[in-house]
Amino acid sequence: MTVYLVGAGPGGIEAVTVGALRLLQRADVVVHDRLVDQAVLDCIPACAERIDVGKNKGVSDSQALINELLVALGRRYSCVVRLKGGDPFVFGRGGEELIALRSAGIAVEVMPGVASAFAAPAAAFIPVTHRGVARGVIVITGHTDFDPRIDFAALSQAGVTLVVLMGVAKRSEIACYLIGQGMDAETPVAIIERALTPAQRTVHANLVDLGAVEVTSPAVMVIGEVAALGREQLREFVGAEHG
Amino acid sequence: MTVYLVGAGPGGIEAVTVGALRLLQRADVVVHDRLVDQAVLDCIPACAERIDVGKNKGVSDSQALINELLVALGRRYSCVVRLKGGDPFVFGRGGEELIALRSAGIAVEVMPGVASAFAAPAAAFIPVTHRGVARGVIVITGHTDFDPRIDFAALSQAGVTLVVLMGVAKRSEIACYLIGQGMDAETPVAIIERALTPAQRTVHANLVDLGAVEVTSPAVMVIGEVAALGREQLREFVGAEHG
Repeated sequence: MTVYLVGAGPGGIEAVTVGALRLLQRADVVVHDRLVDQAVLDCIPACAERIDVGKNKGVSDSQALINELLVALGRRYSCVVRLKGGDPFVFGRGGEELIALRSAGIAVEVMPGVASAFAAPAAAFIPVTHRGVARGVIVITGHTDFDPRIDFAALSQAGVTLVVLMGVAKRSEIACYLIGQGMDAETPVAIIERALTPAQRTVHANLVDLGAVEVTSPAVMVIGEVAALGREQLREFVGAEHG
Repeated sequence: MTVYLVGAGPGGIEAVTVGALRLLQRADVVVHDRLVDQAVLDCIPACAERIDVGKNKGVSDSQALINELLVALGRRYSCVVRLKGGDPFVFGRGGEELIALRSAGIAVEVMPGVASAFAAPAAAFIPVTHRGVARGVIVITGHTDFDPRIDFAALSQAGVTLVVLMGVAKRSEIACYLIGQGMDAETPVAIIERALTPAQRTVHANLVDLGAVEVTSPAVMVIGEVAALGREQLREFVGAEHG
């Protein structure tokens, strides 16, 4: 009668927490989305029911359907795991599910995961903060339009690294927008595809060239001087990334 | 002959990754700092050497000493684990250690951890992003002065959650600075002490009252409407936090 909102991490079994693994192994049912890595799904025991809600994409309000499903499952089973790629509370809509469940009187526990926003850069040897280079980090999604009140050029000048999730498809528009706002066109960018999985790949570019690089989702974009740090200091690593 | 830069997570064994645990169990030597939870240190086998470098605080450049130590250990042992609270690349100076080690020709691997910046709010049922409330999150440290080029009031109006690490001691000054910059004095704040440990405690306040609340380090401050979401929607949870 408890629903656990659990982060699966960015990919691979090594980036799953001990707590998440323990819950998966005693789950009656696991509700997961598309971003959860297959290696993590393989840890779910055969006796547990699995529901892939990633297929609902395109439904007008799939989140409302997922909320209803979780409430129904929470009433029926003693251990429901809602498994999300990365962390459930970082662009994971975990808050919406939490409120829906609590409003229905169902017990909820949260098990934070390794967030893709930080782990993907780390896996490419890029620290999102670095003394003398980056004194902070802002994480946003490329899914919706950027709020014009956010002055990305000023943030960049102040040494705040910009991490964009779900922005690969709109990378051309994003680069144009940021340059239009006054960000240096030569700002280094790194795009990390499928971090921490055997298919991990990092592409380096400058902001002005971002539209031209070949990348596929899911990927995390890091925009700021730390991306160059990855490229310049660590060139010899490129062939030796996690595999 | 490899140094692993490993995140220990915010606290407790459940928030440690499978990969971190595996490395701890085969480490020849573990170099850790003060922020690593005792429950995690207890996973280190008795045969492994342990070095606590948290004690160096106050030394003029303790980071240079730690870098030298890691280089020396990397030359001597086959598996050196550099264990840091949270994530090594989020205000963890992991980037500096990485560069020092690479410059000395030592192999480095990175094992990202659950970052306190996101996990502490999650453990207090506060999503750092939430549709209609917070469309992004900025993480900074309260350790050094804020850069005046960062317009925190505008970020707040744009729905960007502000997470401040290591800011408890300066919380009065931080609140004054943010209000002086134009941030609403009634902006909700949550301070999460010792997240994910049995001693976890959450304190809620408004920005204007932040200086007056009793809190102790280590703690994570969340400033933004999502903090109220935690307080209002989830009031009944307060007694039932992770223990």
